[in-house]
Amino acid sequence: MERALFIGRFQPFHLGHGRILELMLEEYEEAVLVIGSAEESYTERNPFTGGERVEMILRAAGEMNVRDRVVPVPVRDINRYDLWVDHVVSLTPPFQAVFTNNHITELLFSEKGFKIIKTGPIKREDYSGTRIRALMAEGETHWRDLVPPAVLQYLDEIGAERRVRRIYKGE
Amino acid sequence: MERALFIGRFQPFHLGHGRILELMLEEYEEAVLVIGSAEESYTERNPFTGGERVEMILRAAGEMNVRDRVVPVPVRDINRYDLWVDHVVSLTPPFQAVFTNNHITELLFSEKGFKIIKTGPIKREDYSGTRIRALMAEGETHWRDLVPPAVLQYLDEIGAERRVRRIYKGE
Amino acid sequence: MERALFIGRFQPFHLGHGRILELMLEEYEEAVLVIGSAEESYTERNPFTGGERVEMILRAAGEMNVRDRVVPVPVRDINRYDLWVDHVVSLTPPFQAVFTNNHITELLFSEKGFKIIKTGPIKREDYSGTRIRALMAEGETHWRDLVPPAVLQYLDEIGAERRVRRIYKGE
Amino acid sequence: MERALFIGRFQPFHLGHGRILELMLEEYEEAVLVIGSAEESYTERNPFTGGERVEMILRAAGEMNVRDRVVPVPVRDINRYDLWVDHVVSLTPPFQAVFTNNHITELLFSEKGFKIIKTGPIKREDYSGTRIRALMAEGETHWRDLVPPAVLQYLDEIGAERRVRRIYKGE
Amino acid sequence: MERALFIGRFQPFHLGHGRILELMLEEYEEAVLVIGSAEESYTERNPFTGGERVEMILRAAGEMNVRDRVVPVPVRDINRYDLWVDHVVSLTPPFQAVFTNNHITELLFSEKGFKIIKTGPIKREDYSGTRIRALMAEGETHWRDLVPPAVLQYLDEIGAERRVRRIYKGE
Amino acid sequence: MERALFIGRFQPFHLGHGRILELMLEEYEEAVLVIGSAEESYTERNPFTGGERVEMILRAAGEMNVRDRVVPVPVRDINRYDLWVDHVVSLTPPFQAVFTNNHITELLFSEKGFKIIKTGPIKREDYSGTRIRALMAEGETHWRDLVPPAVLQYLDEIGAERRVRRIYKGE
Repeated sequence: MERALFIGRFQPFHLGHGRILELMLEEYEEAVLVIGSAEESYTERNPFTGGERVEMILRAAGEMNVRDRVVPVPVRDINRYDLWVDHVVSLTPPFQAVFTNNHITELLFSEKGFKIIKTGPIKREDYSGTRIRALMAEGETHWRDLVPPAVLQYLDEIGAERRVRRIYKGE
Repeated sequence: MERALFIGRFQPFHLGHGRILELMLEEYEEAVLVIGSAEESYTERNPFTGGERVEMILRAAGEMNVRDRVVPVPVRDINRYDLWVDHVVSLTPPFQAVFTNNHITELLFSEKGFKIIKTGPIKREDYSGTRIRALMAEGETHWRDLVPPAVLQYLDEIGAERRVRRIYKGE
Repeated sequence: MERALFIGRFQPFHLGHGRILELMLEEYEEAVLVIGSAEESYTERNPFTGGERVEMILRAAGEMNVRDRVVPVPVRDINRYDLWVDHVVSLTPPFQAVFTNNHITELLFSEKGFKIIKTGPIKREDYSGTRIRALMAEGETHWRDLVPPAVLQYLDEIGAERRVRRIYKGE
Repeated sequence: MERALFIGRFQPFHLGHGRILELMLEEYEEAVLVIGSAEESYTERNPFTGGERVEMILRAAGEMNVRDRVVPVPVRDINRYDLWVDHVVSLTPPFQAVFTNNHITELLFSEKGFKIIKTGPIKREDYSGTRIRALMAEGETHWRDLVPPAVLQYLDEIGAERRVRRIYKGE
Repeated sequence: MERALFIGRFQPFHLGHGRILELMLEEYEEAVLVIGSAEESYTERNPFTGGERVEMILRAAGEMNVRDRVVPVPVRDINRYDLWVDHVVSLTPPFQAVFTNNHITELLFSEKGFKIIKTGPIKREDYSGTRIRALMAEGETHWRDLVPPAVLQYLDEIGAERRVRRIYKGE
Repeated sequence: MERALFIGRFQPFHLGHGRILELMLEEYEEAVLVIGSAEESYTERNPFTGGERVEMILRAAGEMNVRDRVVPVPVRDINRYDLWVDHVVSLTPPFQAVFTNNHITELLFSEKGFKIIKTGPIKREDYSGTRIRALMAEGETHWRDLVPPAVLQYLDEIGAERRVRRIYKGE
């Protein structure tokens, strides 16, 4: 079986991630979605826990009817790029290709012999976690159009907007 | 949706784990299988990587036709029991109950208000990771009857027996 | 016995901290003062060691005649907000309420069921560690009016001004 | 002011610790009690959290009427003896002497120029944390005579005996 | 035998480092070159691994005919200035003096009794790692005049320019 | 240039290590000696610091007139075998072959494509760090015949025997 891997932070899982997942599953049987910075939460960059992000992926995949072809794997940062590829490989089931839009990821995984597939920018201005979190913090409701319906419902269940607003107010 | 959680090391996934998974899915819609000591590998206690153990769970679940009801989550040790429950909660999707046979797990999770379901010993003498690894190390083939067929095939693919033997020979 | 907890970095302990301590002891029998970032020192944000900050609290409390009602506890950063409350709880004697002016602290401790008492800004422009350190670095003596006399004497004993100046000169 | 320091794990604080504290306060104005392995808990060697051990010391010191002369400081293990003395120094208020019965502590602190005062064995067979925990685990009540009354009451409040028994039953 | 120590990041080893090494060996028999941030690599500040930097030092020292008087030692950051000197001392062979141009290094090592020799700025505008990396990233070839010939050859062997360019392009 | 690598703990550097070094330099131009467990010291297994072990290697190599062909590199344990090879590679200058007598080292480095040269037991009963440390602890002087003269002199300079004896007496 052939698998592809994608590394994101999924803060939150948005329609851009959904589009990448579609692309992966067009060419590969299964998609391993590595949840980066999995142990960081309640910060501006990473408001949601690793587990909450697993849940977002499960719900989005369920909605897309690909739940049994998606493997979410939370992976913590180790802050050592020299060991990063082996760290990811060690925690994920076997995969052959890496979808990425990130130059460092491309550099590191290609040095280890993995096939790289560049995703290219997918309407990045719209589908960006940074922008979605900023909208949440400012009380703008437009972010609700940028995530899949199943993820939106989960974010409402956990009071995501209120949490993000508090975090951005900071100290 | 109601989910149950079980913590194991799955070194390797064996028929005892398969039986616990069945029990979990009789009562709950989904099972979160936490892979403990996920960052340990190539040791006597933990010969297989976290990712290899994710793969074993996926294959076993596929064989049992419950792939879309099982969520494997690799979790590293933090060696702090005071933070252990929150560490697990933080990396897993929401769950309500904990299946366990371990007194410490029971103590820690019950203090945090989780429902505990004791699994009881399931022919422990047969289905024990320790015993299976010892058989592998000694070149006894009897371990092959103690794991699900799909896991057996994977273990053969990665040369599990040879690896375990080398590790047990140690320095 | 009822105790209140306050988390600060105490770089250095200043009159604003003294005022918060008074408020805590008006309502509670004892005050647990958590010294955050306890393992950081000799940096611009944290020039004094955790132990030096314990000493500042002991001297200030002695001067206020509340030495036996104050418990200073140095606590290191773990950079995981999901585990932060349990980390603090694990290292401190039992407490019921948290005095704070910080939105994240409020969010995290209230989610765990602690009573929150907002301190509000206490002439923040005057009593701010950041401002005191900047004054020290610039050779302005006005900072001497912003700390309790007993803390001032200790800071002079350890050559605080000279240390801060050197650190700010950096590389 | 002259201070002495003692490093223990206080699992739990017992009459032997009380006797050492008396000796320290006969010769020195204040005693710094370093709580070693402060971040370890719910294990056979360290069933109680760092904060619970702070509380035991506060209660015992209160009962001895020396609360304002005792400074408990929880300190985590760093597993590097080369840095151990500086780690302890960095987290404690200034001290001049070290009371100890431990050869490594003596070796490391004397190499850094601290005065060493050997405590000698104080009826070690009776006043030993290891023995007290074993008695607790076995359901023997004799341990109740080996800790100060104020500590005994606290241990009962937190259900110490039940916790230790569960931990010793282990997996 | 008298040894001097210098701490740098050597990203990359340049002619300024070569000049400092000369000064050290004029006065001392041997030079210990501590490679700071040794475990960081593939970042803008630290594109080269600790081992690659060991190699640069060995080649530069060989070219200067002082290979047997230079000891490169890779040392990781511990982010605790209170333990920094002991950390360095613990990993290096004995030394008596510290060459430095850094105020914090001077402050920390002089407090521990080491002799400090200020190197002063050696045409810093030219010989700066930051500037060399920026030139590499921009495709300017002028950096080639700022490193010793033997280091230049090594940097070409490992494709340094291409790596730095990719890293600077980042995500 | 061709280099070989050997991983040892060198507690202390003994004649067996000297013999392996000779073998390495017969076939290779340079020898990289990785000092494992470099951050551990003052324990029974690792009484000497990483820096002291660098010094032993430098003195032994000097005595053998191969100082400019030997590169000692202290490397800390990371307790992750899945990342171990990359960790070592990242901190050492380039090498082609690995001399080893250890099954795990052989397994891990051969999986990454390195050439393995088995050293075989070199009168292990005589030249064993464990045995030398035990002799030191017991006050037996026979260990003095098991280390190179230059190392012996250094061990006497730092009071090795007294240190080891104290450590073995332990608590």
